[in-house]
Amino acid sequence: MENRKQPVILVTNDDGFRAKGIQALIDAVQPFGHVVVVAPSQPHSGMSHAITVNLPLRMEKIEEKENLEYYVVSGTPVDCVKLANNQLFRGQKPDLLVSGINHGANSSSSIVYSGTMAAVIEGCLYHTPSIGFSLLDFSRHPDFSASITYVREIVKNALEFGILPDTCLNVNIPKLPYEEIKGVRICRQNKGVWREEFDKRLDPNDREYYWLTGEFYNLEPDAEDTDEWALHHKYISIVPVQVDLTSYKGIEHLKQWKF
Amino acid sequence: MENRKQPVILVTNDDGFRAKGIQALIDAVQPFGHVVVVAPSQPHSGMSHAITVNLPLRMEKIEEKENLEYYVVSGTPVDCVKLANNQLFRGQKPDLLVSGINHGANSSSSIVYSGTMAAVIEGCLYHTPSIGFSLLDFSRHPDFSASITYVREIVKNALEFGILPDTCLNVNIPKLPYEEIKGVRICRQNKGVWREEFDKRLDPNDREYYWLTGEFYNLEPDAEDTDEWALHHKYISIVPVQVDLTSYKGIEHLKQWKF
Repeated sequence: MENRKQPVILVTNDDGFRAKGIQALIDAVQPFGHVVVVAPSQPHSGMSHAITVNLPLRMEKIEEKENLEYYVVSGTPVDCVKLANNQLFRGQKPDLLVSGINHGANSSSSIVYSGTMAAVIEGCLYHTPSIGFSLLDFSRHPDFSASITYVREIVKNALEFGILPDTCLNVNIPKLPYEEIKGVRICRQNKGVWREEFDKRLDPNDREYYWLTGEFYNLEPDAEDTDEWALHHKYISIVPVQVDLTSYKGIEHLKQWKF
Repeated sequence: MENRKQPVILVTNDDGFRAKGIQALIDAVQPFGHVVVVAPSQPHSGMSHAITVNLPLRMEKIEEKENLEYYVVSGTPVDCVKLANNQLFRGQKPDLLVSGINHGANSSSSIVYSGTMAAVIEGCLYHTPSIGFSLLDFSRHPDFSASITYVREIVKNALEFGILPDTCLNVNIPKLPYEEIKGVRICRQNKGVWREEFDKRLDPNDREYYWLTGEFYNLEPDAEDTDEWALHHKYISIVPVQVDLTSYKGIEHLKQWKF
């Protein structure tokens, strides 16, 4: 990749390389350049920014054709980004990282649990412009056709205008046909939380176990500048996300503490 | 826990309930109130904000005595916080969540990989004042005596002055005897990154595999307001961390995009 004539785009996801969403994403970005896919061999939903420290990793090339290389990794989404940068790009950098298209939402505080967005944040820590895409459809066979059109518009903008350093993008797409989507809104992250209702059961030996289930609560449903509002009103939401987690207001507040 | 006369403190970690660090943290906070420990049964370093969605969870009470209840959970640090809130506190809330004491640093961008801090951020999403403690000593048997003294000072302040809503604290402690620690500094998160050097090996069948190793690069070693600077200069660092990841500068920048 010494003398690049076209952008190099790294593609990953957290649903694993067999998911329909990553194929949709590959289809969406192929017109823009040379595509290198490095995806987990298994689904990793809810794995957040997990890295594999106690097991070795495998990386296998499963496909190579004009403008497409495809690798499968035995680890998490973040492992994929790290292996790609260290073993495939070797100091060179992709021009863009895209992750997804996730089967299900990663809006509001769901971002902290998201493997899709963890890969994006890892890309950002590698100083690669990075974007995560999620479709609000948890099913195994969603219709990604509207998503592909919008992914292309967003990638075109990202390649033309860039993304601020130490910032990446969280894009969520409503589950609607193309003609019903009203457009794109730049948003802030909604204040919302998941509250769990563990499903408590007894195993055949009468020992208790729990299944995690939960419900999302929007704590500011009327705030028109949030991603949740945009999605509920049939818009695609883009939230710029920063890797600096410092609360600068919090620094002021802590000055009253006594040591 | 209907009529509480003293604070209720939830304790968790990511190194697992057998780690020396969680026992040090329990010892540190016991003087302040009723302690409920809910810790992973196994180590979960590098698990970040992972949740267990594809396996059921077990929770076992292993100890109950005056002012101490101790539970062990088969899942991640975040699972522990969710199970504690949903099954043990049931709508009531602990007055404080503390996580750690982690064996190793969680300063700078390491926070994104940290199970210790993921539990803290989860506590914050449950609107509980939450603090993570990490000692810069990866060994299995660190000396936590200085840490215990400072944990008590910090917990005392947190109970007296509170922590801003939607904000939690990331505390890192240098590996030094008490008399060499210069004090506590309120900091912002340092700009720094991990860069990987995967150790590539061949298995007995001549197939390649990789071990993740990495090195930390401080991108602003002279910035005196960061956690890395404080730690290198023998101070304890406290970074207030927010759950809103929105880059508001990024919102402005995106306004030039064309749709």
